[in-house]
Amino acid sequence: MKGKAPRANPYWGFIKDPLYGYIRLTDTERRLIDTEPVQRLRRIRQLTGAEYVYPAANHTRFEHSLGTMYLAGILAENLPVSLSKDDVEQLKIAALLHDVGHGPFSHVFDQFLIRYHKKTHEDMTPWIIGNSRIKEILQDDGFNPADMAKLSVAKLRDNQRPYFDQVISSTVDVDKMDFLPRDSYHTGAGYGQADVFRLIYTMGVYDGNLAVDLTALPTLETFLLARLESFKTIYFHRASRAVQIMLVKALEEAKDEIGVTEFKSCEDYIRLDDYTAWSILKKHDNLGIVRDIETRHLLKCAFEKTFYTRDETVTSLFTNEAVRHQIEMEISHRANLDPNKVVIDVPSLPSVPYSHSIGTEPMDVPIFDESRTGEKIPKKLTEVSRVIDVLRVFMNIIRVYTDEANRDRVEKSSREVLENLPAETKMSY
Amino acid sequence: MKGKAPRANPYWGFIKDPLYGYIRLTDTERRLIDTEPVQRLRRIRQLTGAEYVYPAANHTRFEHSLGTMYLAGILAENLPVSLSKDDVEQLKIAALLHDVGHGPFSHVFDQFLIRYHKKTHEDMTPWIIGNSRIKEILQDDGFNPADMAKLSVAKLRDNQRPYFDQVISSTVDVDKMDFLPRDSYHTGAGYGQADVFRLIYTMGVYDGNLAVDLTALPTLETFLLARLESFKTIYFHRASRAVQIMLVKALEEAKDEIGVTEFKSCEDYIRLDDYTAWSILKKHDNLGIVRDIETRHLLKCAFEKTFYTRDETVTSLFTNEAVRHQIEMEISHRANLDPNKVVIDVPSLPSVPYSHSIGTEPMDVPIFDESRTGEKIPKKLTEVSRVIDVLRVFMNIIRVYTDEANRDRVEKSSREVLENLPAETKMSY
Amino acid sequence: MKGKAPRANPYWGFIKDPLYGYIRLTDTERRLIDTEPVQRLRRIRQLTGAEYVYPAANHTRFEHSLGTMYLAGILAENLPVSLSKDDVEQLKIAALLHDVGHGPFSHVFDQFLIRYHKKTHEDMTPWIIGNSRIKEILQDDGFNPADMAKLSVAKLRDNQRPYFDQVISSTVDVDKMDFLPRDSYHTGAGYGQADVFRLIYTMGVYDGNLAVDLTALPTLETFLLARLESFKTIYFHRASRAVQIMLVKALEEAKDEIGVTEFKSCEDYIRLDDYTAWSILKKHDNLGIVRDIETRHLLKCAFEKTFYTRDETVTSLFTNEAVRHQIEMEISHRANLDPNKVVIDVPSLPSVPYSHSIGTEPMDVPIFDESRTGEKIPKKLTEVSRVIDVLRVFMNIIRVYTDEANRDRVEKSSREVLENLPAETKMSY
Amino acid sequence: MKGKAPRANPYWGFIKDPLYGYIRLTDTERRLIDTEPVQRLRRIRQLTGAEYVYPAANHTRFEHSLGTMYLAGILAENLPVSLSKDDVEQLKIAALLHDVGHGPFSHVFDQFLIRYHKKTHEDMTPWIIGNSRIKEILQDDGFNPADMAKLSVAKLRDNQRPYFDQVISSTVDVDKMDFLPRDSYHTGAGYGQADVFRLIYTMGVYDGNLAVDLTALPTLETFLLARLESFKTIYFHRASRAVQIMLVKALEEAKDEIGVTEFKSCEDYIRLDDYTAWSILKKHDNLGIVRDIETRHLLKCAFEKTFYTRDETVTSLFTNEAVRHQIEMEISHRANLDPNKVVIDVPSLPSVPYSHSIGTEPMDVPIFDESRTGEKIPKKLTEVSRVIDVLRVFMNIIRVYTDEANRDRVEKSSREVLENLPAETKMSY
Repeated sequence: MKGKAPRANPYWGFIKDPLYGYIRLTDTERRLIDTEPVQRLRRIRQLTGAEYVYPAANHTRFEHSLGTMYLAGILAENLPVSLSKDDVEQLKIAALLHDVGHGPFSHVFDQFLIRYHKKTHEDMTPWIIGNSRIKEILQDDGFNPADMAKLSVAKLRDNQRPYFDQVISSTVDVDKMDFLPRDSYHTGAGYGQADVFRLIYTMGVYDGNLAVDLTALPTLETFLLARLESFKTIYFHRASRAVQIMLVKALEEAKDEIGVTEFKSCEDYIRLDDYTAWSILKKHDNLGIVRDIETRHLLKCAFEKTFYTRDETVTSLFTNEAVRHQIEMEISHRANLDPNKVVIDVPSLPSVPYSHSIGTEPMDVPIFDESRTGEKIPKKLTEVSRVIDVLRVFMNIIRVYTDEANRDRVEKSSREVLENLPAETKMSY
Repeated sequence: MKGKAPRANPYWGFIKDPLYGYIRLTDTERRLIDTEPVQRLRRIRQLTGAEYVYPAANHTRFEHSLGTMYLAGILAENLPVSLSKDDVEQLKIAALLHDVGHGPFSHVFDQFLIRYHKKTHEDMTPWIIGNSRIKEILQDDGFNPADMAKLSVAKLRDNQRPYFDQVISSTVDVDKMDFLPRDSYHTGAGYGQADVFRLIYTMGVYDGNLAVDLTALPTLETFLLARLESFKTIYFHRASRAVQIMLVKALEEAKDEIGVTEFKSCEDYIRLDDYTAWSILKKHDNLGIVRDIETRHLLKCAFEKTFYTRDETVTSLFTNEAVRHQIEMEISHRANLDPNKVVIDVPSLPSVPYSHSIGTEPMDVPIFDESRTGEKIPKKLTEVSRVIDVLRVFMNIIRVYTDEANRDRVEKSSREVLENLPAETKMSY
Repeated sequence: MKGKAPRANPYWGFIKDPLYGYIRLTDTERRLIDTEPVQRLRRIRQLTGAEYVYPAANHTRFEHSLGTMYLAGILAENLPVSLSKDDVEQLKIAALLHDVGHGPFSHVFDQFLIRYHKKTHEDMTPWIIGNSRIKEILQDDGFNPADMAKLSVAKLRDNQRPYFDQVISSTVDVDKMDFLPRDSYHTGAGYGQADVFRLIYTMGVYDGNLAVDLTALPTLETFLLARLESFKTIYFHRASRAVQIMLVKALEEAKDEIGVTEFKSCEDYIRLDDYTAWSILKKHDNLGIVRDIETRHLLKCAFEKTFYTRDETVTSLFTNEAVRHQIEMEISHRANLDPNKVVIDVPSLPSVPYSHSIGTEPMDVPIFDESRTGEKIPKKLTEVSRVIDVLRVFMNIIRVYTDEANRDRVEKSSREVLENLPAETKMSY
Repeated sequence: MKGKAPRANPYWGFIKDPLYGYIRLTDTERRLIDTEPVQRLRRIRQLTGAEYVYPAANHTRFEHSLGTMYLAGILAENLPVSLSKDDVEQLKIAALLHDVGHGPFSHVFDQFLIRYHKKTHEDMTPWIIGNSRIKEILQDDGFNPADMAKLSVAKLRDNQRPYFDQVISSTVDVDKMDFLPRDSYHTGAGYGQADVFRLIYTMGVYDGNLAVDLTALPTLETFLLARLESFKTIYFHRASRAVQIMLVKALEEAKDEIGVTEFKSCEDYIRLDDYTAWSILKKHDNLGIVRDIETRHLLKCAFEKTFYTRDETVTSLFTNEAVRHQIEMEISHRANLDPNKVVIDVPSLPSVPYSHSIGTEPMDVPIFDESRTGEKIPKKLTEVSRVIDVLRVFMNIIRVYTDEANRDRVEKSSREVLENLPAETKMSY
């Protein structure tokens, strides 16, 4: 939607967003948005599988990228440091482009990038920026494409301004501040609500790092809990994960047709989106997985357990594919089933959206207490907030999936194999 | 999402909807929802093209169908007539199934159904109900599939209860009461807001017909204006229509590959959805239309005019394809362009969503005034509401589209050809 | 709530508003807000009587004044004319102060100001600005108090910039753009929704006047209908009006105790607010009116009729108190009742909120059509919008109120007296 | 607002609520609502003082009482136990009446009830029910007024159905489920959001007690955190508390004029509301407190500290008025100030809204895990949720207030007196 801007105004027009109302675009932004790699994000949904729990969860990475850009602009304009118009625009553009590297089905595809290319979607983003029309536009308008590529994945490493990367990726970055409320809006789940604008307006820079004013601590706590609850109820919901696991299998099966193992050019990669990938899977549906999804015959979770221990065997379950595979063998053997009928699922898999944000990542937002004289005194977050202290280490869920017919058998054998592992140590952490 | 219901309760569980919160499902409804024809609606978007104006408009016919079913239940339970549980369930199921006949890209596909099959999507709905697993489930659970197929497209024609059909399709049916607020929610457009529940709670049955209590007149006016404004700003927005026109062309071009001209079985038809159709079009993109859409090079509206006249030549423009084609020829000739570079667009095309609800359809909601003694006195809507009177006949927009490069030339020649047609008669209507 | 702003920033902090999120305050604004005349607005509710229809309608003129100031700032910053920071601040302050002249129960009190002082609340506003701490603050911070007093009631009359007054008071001013959505929010009524920010972002200045871009016409139509529907369902709702009529009676009865007839100083006037006035009325409740309101024994509407005629007798009913009084006499006489048991109510009374915005006021928003070359072509609103044309002259409702016991009798005699008046002329207007 | 209900329907009509949409009323409910004690709640605001932080926080106990009644109905109808229509109505009525005992300024007044009458507002509620028109209506319609009076304050003590009391008052009762989202709505604060309906739909009865299904654990965690964050940012906000402390002083000063020390009859008590109390305070404002509030000269928090210790001296600060008084003396002495210039504020005061729900109260919601066979297995909340475990003991804030002029001096002497108290023991709780 194009509104008209006064001639002197560098803005091109507005886009309407259900969360923020009108988002203003500069001409540079508009031209970047109209490139193929960004437009392609219209056909990559934000949440793969969640629509089987929340039917309205059909929003895309395109919409999210616009929202992230918007928040980057608001944050940059409100940070109490002096940023030039150009600085602000850099942060906005990096936010806009941060997701262009995603493959079809978003995080589900990461597993393949890792397996066959030793890459994640965050490696693909700079590659696409550097090998597409995006590069030309950036150059034409006076931006350094190499720097922008780095900043878009928070790897600019500017020692003078480490907060530049942190705006794009950190515990309370513009990415999360957009997707949590947006996922809540479109799912209707009601989690993920937090006063993002209070966070933004109270953010400061302390020692070069993005930091939050102590007065906004309740907001920060609410935000971090919202992330946790969204993880449990949306991203790692049993049925969402069932669909994702099935898609991983289907992609593996049709990997040659998809071309996942061999794409060479940027064009090859960006040709893949949810639409094309789905059609290919549907055409080569030897295992009937697509058919099962399309008639909603999903895998069932036969067993689930949460661990709070650092026991070595348990930890290896979460980090080591081989160990998981062996346990799958053991469970299926006891249940007298074909091994590929049993799947162990844990949040640390690359295909788990936001897995990287759970547990292992310290919630390390710097906090400062601004005195009445304007002095900023740093605080440790875990010292000022007992809530956040407990959110830091929170869950290592392990689940065993199988098909409906074998649910009881797999439940029983999973219990035998996994129940005796130590679940908790003392309350010492 | 499955909640647990008490044993004695016939409900199977809940689904979360962003508009209504929790939607309860009976077991019958759940099994119908899990059939392929209903699940397929997850891959048919509610609004084709509107996402190019409102990036968040990615909702699907699946979500809308659930919402329509929900409203049908609320309305049926609140109508002041005695309906059995079975009656209520019939209305809910019909509402759930009312859209299963849609092809890919929803209304855009109607043009092909008409051209090659002399059918609309409303003819396809009963066909799919009668030739799929839906039929079996209905039979198993004691419903008459033939009657349900008719009711789902509001053609039950029950003389005793004409309001049955009207719940599904009339000026204020559950379909429109769902999609107007839902389109507003997901686009963020802010139109389409109306107090739908006030309408529902004040609806009655007068003389066998669905009728609205006079006390809800402001609500009804707001609802009907919301429909009009949504038409202007969402459904018939210039850029939305540009995408739709381009898709019509691309489909026509690839009609053999799509198989649109010859599908025989129900399976063939329901295999087609937005995902598969898009992939086929992309593969056979001889005209580069898909490429243009994917890089947002859309057709431009070079000329637009609104007519309020019944002049014969003008009317024929809206109703007669041959006349439009001839005008296209004349405009392109004067502009010295290939004829297929010029497209005339009017709201009465089958590919225009909601065209059927505009203008030609009288806004004929029966109104009654309930006296303090409980007597119902019928009123004519246009007598009690001057607002609605004016909404009845409102607009015959004609637009001329072309590509960006030829915009000025086409504007000029369109002006020559179309400007002199009589635009208005007196204020007599 | 005080957030911290960077030292270089002239802003003092933020206030949280449920409609707009964070509202930034400059130091001048903050000091003006903390004066007694502005703080007093916390104890004057925005909608007197509406809480008896919508229990949540408890918002105040204080909240509305902050919101109006906020919108004035957004509008001023987005108008495509060059305004200095000082210009913007003037418009914001005028908006903040526009309601300080209101008496207790807002518009209900206007009747007394007119009767005993030949003034409306809009005359009181400049008086209070000029005779309170507000004047000092304005002077201290470099504003001209006399000009600000005029601008706050849209009487600056700046020939170079007539739009300055129009921002404060015109068909789509910041006052209405705030109260319509705000009343909708707090009542929950669901009317009054309109995309106010689209209006603001598309407003321009044409020939010195505030004007709306043709592309925003649907938004403007929705806004104007929202105003009309809010009038019908909130401001002029039967039960709201019953309370207002009762309060008018109670105030008249206790006018000496209230001091309405004689207050001399500004201090006297601003001592009056809803709290003090209510307490005085309660103490001197000879007629038992307060008791009736507190136990919700409200007057009942025994008769209602809408006129669309210019017949002289009818018109006099709406404009002439003496004529109404005579009709009250006649109805009560026929019903064999004490004359003060019958009250005729019409929307043109000074105590009717927003009466001035109905009917008589032409909806005369200038519209311009901006060509692709940037040229602005003026349009007449009624020519481009048939919807607005019909909204212009819309209703002359006449109602007859009495107490519950006499409802039937008064209905009958009202019918005899009023039914035979000509209700409509032809459709000529 | 009266909608019309079918004759056979026992419902009288609807009331519109901004949170729930339409609330249906039975005729009994309607008549109870129209009594003086319930209507009086229109003039008692839900949150005293919070409007000085959130200007839109003007909602009343009336609105909240309607909402609480509504949720009681929804919960009662969805609990998987068989409740008669009469049971449901009892719970709804108790919820409607639960707040009628509140004095002016809600919780602020509790301090006086305790000091002069050894009562809290919860003791007043049954007294008012038993001594007003409410009693007659209950009797007329077949309810036992004595039982209803008990149930309204959750003291029915029905051994067969302990959950009856728990619906009205427990960790997740209908009171909190209404006020948390409602306070969030009207303040705009954005805390207090939780999926209340998911809680309601998943509640069960376990062993006679209200219990929550394990599947709703994330919802429960979000709800409990929302309560905590609302406490910090709304109810115990520094400026809210400043106003409350000032009101306590003003009430104490004018206690004879208010009549707080001696009211004998129910009529005397319910004559007091925010309006009358404010007017009396204003008239007898010897200390200038009302004047200070009306010009927003609020007390300032000079010092704040949070304790996590069970040290005896510290604990006595929170529980013993004499100890606090002594510390106030010491601080003022060191600061060379009049003792009544220093006020120590802690959350355990009777005038602190919701103090009772903090800390001391165990968060003891019973949790059950329903197996696929329908068996319910009880769980301890603190075992299944580490988040809730930490929320249980959360904060003992101590603050020292004084006026602006003495802020620095009081800060310094508070630091001397309070800084050396032990703030934390080990992490053992």
